[in-house]
Amino acid sequence: MQLHPAVAGPSSRNGGGEGNISTMATATLLLPICGVALFLSMLVNPCYSQQFAISFQRPADCDVEHFYDISSLSCVKCGPNQRRSATGAYTTCFCCCQFSNVSCQCRMSLELFYRVFYLFFLKAVTEDGYGCIRCPGILTEQGTCQCPPGNILVERDVQGNPLEQARCEVCNGTDPALSSPNNYGDRCERCQTSFINTSQSCVCGSNILVRQSSMLNMHVRRKSSEKKGSLRRLRVCVRVVQVYTNLTACQALGNMCVMNMHSFSSVANDACGLYNTIFRATAALGSTQDISYWRANLPWLYYGDQPGLANRVLQTDPLPTGFSFKGLNRNADVNLVAAVYSARGDFLQWETVGGNNLQLCPDSPSRQKAAYVFGTAYQETVSVCLCLKTFGFYRGCRVVYLTHVYRRLLPLPTCNLNQQYNGKFINRGNKNDWYLSRRVLLVDTLSGREKSLSSLPKVMRIASSIRIGFQLVPGTQKGQVFPPLLTVSYSDILITDPNTQSVSVSFAVYYEMDQTEARVKTDVSNIGLFSAILGCCVCVYARVQIALGVLGGVSVLYSLVKTASWKRRIGSPLIGMETVLKFLLFYAGDLANVFFVITMGTGLYWLIFYKAQHFVSVLLPLPGQQEERFITYVGCAFALKTVQFLHKLILQLSVDIFFIDWERPRGNANKLVQGNGEAKRDHSPVSIWRTYFVANEWNEIQTVRKISPTFQVMAVLFLLEVVGFSSLALRDPWSDLQRSPQSYSPPYSLILRYGLAATLWVCMGLLQMVFFTVFHERFVEDKIRQFVDLCSISNISVLLLSHRCFGYYIHGRSVHGHADTNMEEMNTNLKREAESLCGQRGLLPNTDTQTFQVSITSRLRQQYDRILEPLSRRNGPSRLVDAASGHPFDQSTRAYNTMNRFLGSVIDHAHRDMEYIVRDKLFFERVIGMEFMEPMDKSIFYNDDSHSFSDILFYGNEATLLIFDTLFFCVVDLGAQSFVLAAILTYAQQLLFRLIRDTVGRRNLANKTLVDKRFLI
Amino acid sequence: MQLHPAVAGPSSRNGGGEGNISTMATATLLLPICGVALFLSMLVNPCYSQQFAISFQRPADCDVEHFYDISSLSCVKCGPNQRRSATGAYTTCFCCCQFSNVSCQCRMSLELFYRVFYLFFLKAVTEDGYGCIRCPGILTEQGTCQCPPGNILVERDVQGNPLEQARCEVCNGTDPALSSPNNYGDRCERCQTSFINTSQSCVCGSNILVRQSSMLNMHVRRKSSEKKGSLRRLRVCVRVVQVYTNLTACQALGNMCVMNMHSFSSVANDACGLYNTIFRATAALGSTQDISYWRANLPWLYYGDQPGLANRVLQTDPLPTGFSFKGLNRNADVNLVAAVYSARGDFLQWETVGGNNLQLCPDSPSRQKAAYVFGTAYQETVSVCLCLKTFGFYRGCRVVYLTHVYRRLLPLPTCNLNQQYNGKFINRGNKNDWYLSRRVLLVDTLSGREKSLSSLPKVMRIASSIRIGFQLVPGTQKGQVFPPLLTVSYSDILITDPNTQSVSVSFAVYYEMDQTEARVKTDVSNIGLFSAILGCCVCVYARVQIALGVLGGVSVLYSLVKTASWKRRIGSPLIGMETVLKFLLFYAGDLANVFFVITMGTGLYWLIFYKAQHFVSVLLPLPGQQEERFITYVGCAFALKTVQFLHKLILQLSVDIFFIDWERPRGNANKLVQGNGEAKRDHSPVSIWRTYFVANEWNEIQTVRKISPTFQVMAVLFLLEVVGFSSLALRDPWSDLQRSPQSYSPPYSLILRYGLAATLWVCMGLLQMVFFTVFHERFVEDKIRQFVDLCSISNISVLLLSHRCFGYYIHGRSVHGHADTNMEEMNTNLKREAESLCGQRGLLPNTDTQTFQVSITSRLRQQYDRILEPLSRRNGPSRLVDAASGHPFDQSTRAYNTMNRFLGSVIDHAHRDMEYIVRDKLFFERVIGMEFMEPMDKSIFYNDDSHSFSDILFYGNEATLLIFDTLFFCVVDLGAQSFVLAAILTYAQQLLFRLIRDTVGRRNLANKTLVDKRFLI
Repeated sequence: MQLHPAVAGPSSRNGGGEGNISTMATATLLLPICGVALFLSMLVNPCYSQQFAISFQRPADCDVEHFYDISSLSCVKCGPNQRRSATGAYTTCFCCCQFSNVSCQCRMSLELFYRVFYLFFLKAVTEDGYGCIRCPGILTEQGTCQCPPGNILVERDVQGNPLEQARCEVCNGTDPALSSPNNYGDRCERCQTSFINTSQSCVCGSNILVRQSSMLNMHVRRKSSEKKGSLRRLRVCVRVVQVYTNLTACQALGNMCVMNMHSFSSVANDACGLYNTIFRATAALGSTQDISYWRANLPWLYYGDQPGLANRVLQTDPLPTGFSFKGLNRNADVNLVAAVYSARGDFLQWETVGGNNLQLCPDSPSRQKAAYVFGTAYQETVSVCLCLKTFGFYRGCRVVYLTHVYRRLLPLPTCNLNQQYNGKFINRGNKNDWYLSRRVLLVDTLSGREKSLSSLPKVMRIASSIRIGFQLVPGTQKGQVFPPLLTVSYSDILITDPNTQSVSVSFAVYYEMDQTEARVKTDVSNIGLFSAILGCCVCVYARVQIALGVLGGVSVLYSLVKTASWKRRIGSPLIGMETVLKFLLFYAGDLANVFFVITMGTGLYWLIFYKAQHFVSVLLPLPGQQEERFITYVGCAFALKTVQFLHKLILQLSVDIFFIDWERPRGNANKLVQGNGEAKRDHSPVSIWRTYFVANEWNEIQTVRKISPTFQVMAVLFLLEVVGFSSLALRDPWSDLQRSPQSYSPPYSLILRYGLAATLWVCMGLLQMVFFTVFHERFVEDKIRQFVDLCSISNISVLLLSHRCFGYYIHGRSVHGHADTNMEEMNTNLKREAESLCGQRGLLPNTDTQTFQVSITSRLRQQYDRILEPLSRRNGPSRLVDAASGHPFDQSTRAYNTMNRFLGSVIDHAHRDMEYIVRDKLFFERVIGMEFMEPMDKSIFYNDDSHSFSDILFYGNEATLLIFDTLFFCVVDLGAQSFVLAAILTYAQQLLFRLIRDTVGRRNLANKTLVDKRFLI
Repeated sequence: MQLHPAVAGPSSRNGGGEGNISTMATATLLLPICGVALFLSMLVNPCYSQQFAISFQRPADCDVEHFYDISSLSCVKCGPNQRRSATGAYTTCFCCCQFSNVSCQCRMSLELFYRVFYLFFLKAVTEDGYGCIRCPGILTEQGTCQCPPGNILVERDVQGNPLEQARCEVCNGTDPALSSPNNYGDRCERCQTSFINTSQSCVCGSNILVRQSSMLNMHVRRKSSEKKGSLRRLRVCVRVVQVYTNLTACQALGNMCVMNMHSFSSVANDACGLYNTIFRATAALGSTQDISYWRANLPWLYYGDQPGLANRVLQTDPLPTGFSFKGLNRNADVNLVAAVYSARGDFLQWETVGGNNLQLCPDSPSRQKAAYVFGTAYQETVSVCLCLKTFGFYRGCRVVYLTHVYRRLLPLPTCNLNQQYNGKFINRGNKNDWYLSRRVLLVDTLSGREKSLSSLPKVMRIASSIRIGFQLVPGTQKGQVFPPLLTVSYSDILITDPNTQSVSVSFAVYYEMDQTEARVKTDVSNIGLFSAILGCCVCVYARVQIALGVLGGVSVLYSLVKTASWKRRIGSPLIGMETVLKFLLFYAGDLANVFFVITMGTGLYWLIFYKAQHFVSVLLPLPGQQEERFITYVGCAFALKTVQFLHKLILQLSVDIFFIDWERPRGNANKLVQGNGEAKRDHSPVSIWRTYFVANEWNEIQTVRKISPTFQVMAVLFLLEVVGFSSLALRDPWSDLQRSPQSYSPPYSLILRYGLAATLWVCMGLLQMVFFTVFHERFVEDKIRQFVDLCSISNISVLLLSHRCFGYYIHGRSVHGHADTNMEEMNTNLKREAESLCGQRGLLPNTDTQTFQVSITSRLRQQYDRILEPLSRRNGPSRLVDAASGHPFDQSTRAYNTMNRFLGSVIDHAHRDMEYIVRDKLFFERVIGMEFMEPMDKSIFYNDDSHSFSDILFYGNEATLLIFDTLFFCVVDLGAQSFVLAAILTYAQQLLFRLIRDTVGRRNLANKTLVDKRFLI
């Protein structure tokens, strides 16, 4: 029986007749059956199809007697004496070549013995797989004929007629034929031009570097074993490279060196070593493009190895054109192009870098493009699948250039972190020792293939981290940068299952400037309006250390003054531990302010100068060490401010206060003046309700502030998160508030975040303060003035002692003599006052001044303490819990009456030995907050129209509170990078401290004024 | 001079001697010059390199006499008589073939005349371009020899020696040679198996469908002109397909039909028409895989064209296995595989869908993978570059299958929106008329190429929108779905500049269920704890319409009752416009509650049932129409609630209030009892300060609420944005709160957002209410009770009239007889009361009840109004502005005193004709909020221990306020999709209304109680 090629179908051609008939017969037989079955199934189920589901068979599921039918997607049996094709998608059957019909053994793996046996008795399979032929020699493992190396196998004549026996022919390699076997070994073709150029024939000439070439071959076999043809070509390369002519071969050698991580040892036995040997040997050829490291015809792989060269290359010559963010000459695009070479050394094309050719991280094009906008810090790390298909793109080596105007290209010096020299990673240490190179590869799936190119690689090498760094020329006003540095680091991944394995790759573009060189920029003219305002910020930033020193010194002085003032006010001349502690507390507050001013100035400086610059002249400090010092400052500021805030809070919570009731019983007015010492329980006592009213109001204004703290939180949150100011803190030079969610969002700069948040908070606070001061307090409600007025109307004065011998006095003596009266009289009084029909409210006759700062003598204070002594002796808290029960009522009422009368008489100048004078404070006294005159004999009342008694309320400490809130907000935000969380926690903090101030303050008030706590509601 | 192949280098081999020498000489000459120049440049500039910049030359920049030197990346001159290669990257030079050395004209486009001329006198270029040869016939346009069709051109003998003259040979196409020219036309190879199968030779057999095949050829030329070889193959296909054997050819025909959008007209003159003709003609062959639409050997392209088939395919047979989100049998992965065929019909491979093979939108793999998790709504639209390279991947046609257990494949029915039938888009209309198909292509760059495959396509067809839709089986408990539908829509893009052009592509996966079929799910056992709570939600949701009807009806009744109650309370029997208006206002409030309950129930239903289900049994309503109705409900609820809120606010702002002072002057106690009608201005008047104090407190509790509204805002914001509850509103079945920013974030479901926000808000409100009621009011401070106590201590009663004849009374008569006394007595009184040494505070003797609801008689009200008449006559506002000045003082004081005495005497039962009784309210009266008894002769005081007077404060309307806030928050969020903005605006809204309530309420208070506004601070 004659053997014929089989067809891609269920039946082989030789058995075609019967086969087809039988198939057809089966089909015709089956069709009615199918129809009946179909009909039956339709009866059973209104659905006439079995859900269209098919079973999942893949080509690999078919055994050797089945081929994969690509129409029905299932395994179908081959015809008789046929086998499934061994390679590809198993979609055809081939006939088996055999001596007789006994068995079908073709395409088995044959041992040498059988191969010889077959040579004499059996036929081999033709190369196309469709026929059988007798061989001139031995067989290959696949059962086809094998010719000696350099021969071609001829199975057909020129008209395509198959020969009875295959022939092996030798290609004529000499001029003019210059032919050699093609890659498939079945035809003579013109051989590599490399051969021709070197030896004028296709026969290899003599070779001086046999040792190295064979080593390279080893390397080739180890690292990048391609097909036979390409192996040959690489071998050729070495020989040809040595006579310095073949461009492609040289590039291929260069690529092999790149695949080898640019690494070489002094013993030149690998691709890079060979490259260097050739490089040295070709000095006479001269350089290309006037670059001494770029030898003619050779690829330029290395910069020189002089010490410090890296620094010189990277920091000597800036780019001729600068980057600018705005204006007509806007130039913020980083245009990179890459010359791409295939692994074999062919030049493929020039690629515009962007999108996928450097970034392995898949992302949307608009986001990827953001990496090439100058000033936008770009950082993306993503885990990508190892699917080989995905990496199809990235084959080949790339040389990256930066283009600038006039079509000039600047090569990007590359720092390969995996580069070794004598086994040492030289690019991981000191920059001076770096050995810069050029040309990168993204994915190397060649080197890791063990036997042939068709096998899967065992190991894959991938550029797992690529970073491009720009460095600003120090002091530039025109946005000049040095040549950017491309840093690449490779990882080798052992491939087990490429479809499920993944690898983390990252791509980053960063911008840095020498922050130690940051100087006062004189060219702030383009900032225009801001420049004046920011002068101080700039100065502050320019010399943070100096500013810190100077301001720190000033604050020491200021704290010393405060301590001295405090000493005077407590009336104690001794300097002890307490004094030192006080000094430290004052100093903490002042230092906190210094830190706050400096950090906020710095933040604002970066915010404005970075975001507003036309030409690039400043770049943000990098995350990490450069930002850390800044954050330390902020942390210090916050810690110190907290100390100051708590100190003030505690002082406020322990202030001494007393309400002096001027009202005298109407019926027995004479009696009291006679000083009987004890008020008789008459039928007409003075009502205590006015005191309750005043105490209640005082209780309510304790936590009143100049701003609305909750509104503050909400407004800042609104500006940051809804209006979108938070976009200003992104590490890019744009100042758009609203970013599209699709666009790339660079990481946040902590310094910008702080600068932004602090500025917004403080500005919003100031705005609120202006609103409340200018509008609200004038036209709606001024709680502090209301309180003073209330005192006056209710005929009650308030004495507040914040220190032992210093405090405040609100004079509330009614100008009408009586306030404890009915509605009619009250209205009449108010009306009279409105019409100025009565006297003025001031302490001194014909003055209006109702509020005073008081320095009292020690004697007065001693008397004050003595009256309160019985109360303070039985200690507070246990009594406060249930003030209504128990007997100390009498004591407290007696103390209240005594104190009322005592203080009333002091104010009325009734005590000769506790006289006081009223005077104005000197300007300088006002400024430094210290009284020059000591109250030795007489107490001193300083006129104080500015209601400075609010210093012992939240109201008078708005600056401290505002800065504390600001710092709290910023510190939370720096920690959590969430403005929302910061806002919520700031609100909670405000709530907490207000609660503490209210509750404890109320207790203190009840305690000191002897007003029952239940009336402070 | 003999012509020789040129080398890839600057010098040709024939001029090699001189050329090389001159080059070398130039090099040696230049080297020192270079060196000197280098040295000089080093002197001038410490930088020894010229910044390494090179000029940018691309291969296309080189003219015909220059080739592109891939080492130096610049154009270098070819040798003499050489030209740059015309194709590829221009990286080599070729020699020109010519008669003499006069000119170099090879490879020019030659007219026929010249071609003949050259035939006799000149040599042609060899096919490999490296040599010259005499031709047997005419020349091609490229200047190479041309053989007749079917012949091959032989230029070398079998050993590779070039022939003197090329030969044209005919391939032997008969058995057993079966050879035909290969694609390049330079060799005889075994011809297509298709030929062999049809004609047993390589000669085309007779053909019955010549007309159609030629039309197909036209189509081929128009739509997908490939290389010669492939053109031939496609032509073959038609012939072969008609004898039903060649699989690849059939697939290729199928692919052409797909490229033609599956469109055909009844005149079968295109690929799809041909396919259908063949399909019909091969009925006898039977079907594959038991699917009647899948003809053996043919690709399965169409489902049948019966009307309604699409519906039956898509909604009859569910998948055998269901999806489940949780538990051991978790099965939420949508496993899609695609059989990929090349355009030529080769089966390439089975691909697991995921990553790039259906999604053209580039994104990170983890995000792309999210598309194949069941229940995660996926939607991505992105603009991608048209770079042809990018689309290299997507070539070929894909048939997509869904895999399920036991390795079964279910084909995804495809709805091609571009499919035409007789020029009509049939798949864009009614689902019944759809004509489902299979097989999609992502990018077609073939059809748009005009001349050859190497040219760029003019038009590109791209699958611009791919959507996969799952539909849940109605009523399933096991997560069963119908076969998913793949909807694809193509766009044709005219290519102008592929590197800058971009196109918007989208990919979506959506899930739907028949919402009209949504029924009460009985299988809620897996919800466990929730099921009980949610019973009503489910019921509510189950029949929203019914629920709406029922609850709407109930609310009408309830509103009617309220209106009736209101009629009684205002003491007017007439039914007029005002009554109708009132009814509508009440109805608005009740309807708002109905809407709120239903919408919140629905939201909660979706939230819990969607997020908590093990087996998939519900799917979210799709955005658009299905959500719109829901949002309308929410909008209604909000609008109606706003009406109710404003109504209540206005009522509260106009309430009548009066403080009754029980205090009598001490000295003249007898005088007053005798009823002299006018209080003498005695020396001991009753102090008004207690009234001030009480009024002041009342002013302060006006806006006190049962919760802290700002804390509410902050807490909800914290939960949503910081804790991350907002993730629950994402359209996926997971309930993780914190999502990685890298992972895919599906769009938000508005219903879930609403359900989540409303639930959190209400829950947080309830929690706060519990905290304040159980802890804060009991152990810290209860403002309402404090006020009642204060009334009692200050000897002042409060009469509040919310309606004309209905109101509240707080009995505050001091048990001690006097309250206007000094601290000592106050403390004593408090102490006595604490020790229960005095009487009880109640209105009736020996009771404790101090608070009452009062129904007063019209007579009493008339008297009340009569007393206030002089005040109300001169109308309010102008007087309020400056209450302290002007003469109406006397009037107001007189009115105050009269009213004080009148009300006091009424309470004291001093008026015989204005008697009242005290009784308890019936339970039913309490429930429906209406008094059954009309106060005809006597007023009725109802005991009311629950402080229901707070109904005319914010405090008593917490439910309304809470729901209003909730709806406000949700509506803002639905509009802006930002919880932060919603929180901020809600805070602002609360601030605004509190301000209004405070300011206007204070004015009303001053107006009604005659207490000067300045004391309400």
